Amino acid sequence: MIRHKRDGREHDSAELGAFIDAFVAGEVADYQASAWLMAAFLNGLSSRETLALTFAMLHSGQVLELPSVKRARVDKHSTGGVGDKISLCLAPLVAACGVAVPMISGRGLGHTGGTLDKLEAIPGFRVDLGAKRFERIVRDVGACLIGQTAELAPADRRLYALRDVTATVECIPLIVASILSKKLAEGIDGLVLDVKCGNGAFMKDLKSARALAQALVSVGKGAGKRVSALITDMSAPIGATIGNALETREAIAVLRNTGPADTRALTLELGAEMLLLGKRCKTKAQALTLLQAALADGSALAVFRRLVKAQGGDVRCVDDPSHLPQSRAQVIMKAPRSGYVTAIDSFALGNLAIELGAGRTRADQKIDPAAGFELHATVGTHVTRGAALVTIHAARRSLAESVAKRVQASWVLGARRPKRGPLVLSRIS
Amino acid sequence: MIRHKRDGREHDSAELGAFIDAFVAGEVADYQASAWLMAAFLNGLSSRETLALTFAMLHSGQVLELPSVKRARVDKHSTGGVGDKISLCLAPLVAACGVAVPMISGRGLGHTGGTLDKLEAIPGFRVDLGAKRFERIVRDVGACLIGQTAELAPADRRLYALRDVTATVECIPLIVASILSKKLAEGIDGLVLDVKCGNGAFMKDLKSARALAQALVSVGKGAGKRVSALITDMSAPIGATIGNALETREAIAVLRNTGPADTRALTLELGAEMLLLGKRCKTKAQALTLLQAALADGSALAVFRRLVKAQGGDVRCVDDPSHLPQSRAQVIMKAPRSGYVTAIDSFALGNLAIELGAGRTRADQKIDPAAGFELHATVGTHVTRGAALVTIHAARRSLAESVAKRVQASWVLGARRPKRGPLVLSRIS
Repeated sequence: MIRHKRDGREHDSAELGAFIDAFVAGEVADYQASAWLMAAFLNGLSSRETLALTFAMLHSGQVLELPSVKRARVDKHSTGGVGDKISLCLAPLVAACGVAVPMISGRGLGHTGGTLDKLEAIPGFRVDLGAKRFERIVRDVGACLIGQTAELAPADRRLYALRDVTATVECIPLIVASILSKKLAEGIDGLVLDVKCGNGAFMKDLKSARALAQALVSVGKGAGKRVSALITDMSAPIGATIGNALETREAIAVLRNTGPADTRALTLELGAEMLLLGKRCKTKAQALTLLQAALADGSALAVFRRLVKAQGGDVRCVDDPSHLPQSRAQVIMKAPRSGYVTAIDSFALGNLAIELGAGRTRADQKIDPAAGFELHATVGTHVTRGAALVTIHAARRSLAESVAKRVQASWVLGARRPKRGPLVLSRIS
Repeated sequence: MIRHKRDGREHDSAELGAFIDAFVAGEVADYQASAWLMAAFLNGLSSRETLALTFAMLHSGQVLELPSVKRARVDKHSTGGVGDKISLCLAPLVAACGVAVPMISGRGLGHTGGTLDKLEAIPGFRVDLGAKRFERIVRDVGACLIGQTAELAPADRRLYALRDVTATVECIPLIVASILSKKLAEGIDGLVLDVKCGNGAFMKDLKSARALAQALVSVGKGAGKRVSALITDMSAPIGATIGNALETREAIAVLRNTGPADTRALTLELGAEMLLLGKRCKTKAQALTLLQAALADGSALAVFRRLVKAQGGDVRCVDDPSHLPQSRAQVIMKAPRSGYVTAIDSFALGNLAIELGAGRTRADQKIDPAAGFELHATVGTHVTRGAALVTIHAARRSLAESVAKRVQASWVLGARRPKRGPLVLSRIS
């Protein structure tokens, strides 16, 4: 098996299935799997192999079917960005429009945040629900957001742990199989992929983002699902907050029909894709009308309220965000001179957020839900010298101050108003 | 480190040294080392990297200096062939000519035999001597042949075990570092490499044999040693025997100034290289004169007698090979028709020898020292129908007979006398 891939030959699906089975059963040693992963990294996997690997990983565990959920079920997956709280407002919004959203999410690792950590900023919110309760909440509320269970795609968990320590993470076929094996286990009919592109994302340029998006769509369709992908701009943080409680507050603002324009716009774009994949609408215009109405009439917020209640969270947070965790220390970083914000280094901010305690570099690290950044300007904003650019939230003043010094370097101020590119760079279906 | 090699970048020697140190210390996990090995396999290692890896592996353990041995010290290494018993006659012959031979050898694995197994066919012969006794015998006898100790190049032992199970064996830089890290630990001034080429060898064609020979010579010289390589023909078995006691008997015949012409010729060619590298002679002609004299006057045989005695072996075997283990059953395979022997499949014979018990496919298998093949004809010999081609030696008649049937397929008889190529295909220095 290792020899085959080393020599650049194609595996058949039976071979890949037997390999994954043997790996999960402990019959293939880690050192053999890692040699195979490196050979796959360097010699690639064909789309047939990627599909076979995805199926093998999917069937290494439980595959949900959600028989009691009668509505179309569509999920969204983001490849990870800085300030990406879209799932929190998107899932209840789409559910309010009549498409069920069974969403299994991840935690933050490295400079990008994780949906589960953001939800857990709501006191009492439980993400470790079993398959039965998950199905019941999807049926009754329309959406449910939980973490991966031990039963779903165990091959992915073991392979990912190995990839992480053997420099074989950044490999499109392995990424595709990892994402889709988990998502296909949710019992969905359709999936929209938000492939982030730019400095704050894993895919730094449009070419590699497009390659990943195309591979995801093609393998997802190969698995019999309705799949589309949006490649979206990740050159600046999404919205006005980075950090768990801060982002949850922002997502709630979007559900209240306010919130930053870009967070709202991205939610609507992805929501429209989901309604189309769920066959709830025939055109994007229809979908946008439905979505905007659900934000305006409070029905999306109402779904979120029911979701928080069903998952054990403190419902008061939905109507009064002051119930969310608050940071002890806030330090304001001011504009050192007047000018237009021409760039914000979201990768740097994502890493500084980890230092504040808002994220983690190792899976076993604790996080501080209240820590993070509030951004008072975005790319294109004109600021005058001394105006607040960022509020840094941390558990201690000294920590906030030490990070504040380095936050400045991630902001570029210029004399001319920058041209900002579109939010959606490309759509693949 | 893994990432670097995955991306095709060059390691510096400090990096490689730290990696090997950490691997031997258990700080780099096997699954990480195997990912690195696969990346090195696919992306290659430069000659600087190979040299640095060799040094790192060499210095992972003890490096012998043999201060009491005042003569020049030169060793030979063969990349492994079928019927290759050259070390047994070469070491005492070269020692008899005034160059010390401190030789650390291996065991047979797969279709090629191992010097240690052949020596152990002599009852009582010990190959597990410590460094002090090794040095004393090299000093007093002129040559000593032992197995690798736990102290010498432990990094190689661990890395090789991993390569064996991760399909990363057949990689020239890794082969070079493995061979040389062990050989440089012997305290030698010079080394001649017998790079086998052909059906019975790891390198099947001249191009790959030449690439390996050049890499070995260049890295060996980079390590400050005098090194040359002969690429020698391995399209037919060497000499007239395959199997441990049978080969030891043949090596003794060569030391008695008889034995098969090709075994003798190869011994003389490699011996001449060793005398030149040891600066005992200035020309190959001088070297050959010295070597032939040592065979003719019995001084080479006398060194072997002293060596067997010093290493605990039954000295009677040297003068009366009937003291070597004898097989219980012998079955003769006869020529099915008259003709010239045009080819002998040495790879097939090597593998059939394993079935007889003369070799092993796993390191923990026991071998039968008496088992093997006596070849009564070689490539170019004319045989008449019914003449004995091979005597098969085994512990049981049924075993010998079952192998005999398949031995026939490895012999090709033709109407025309074949042209046999030269023994030494190329010399690299």
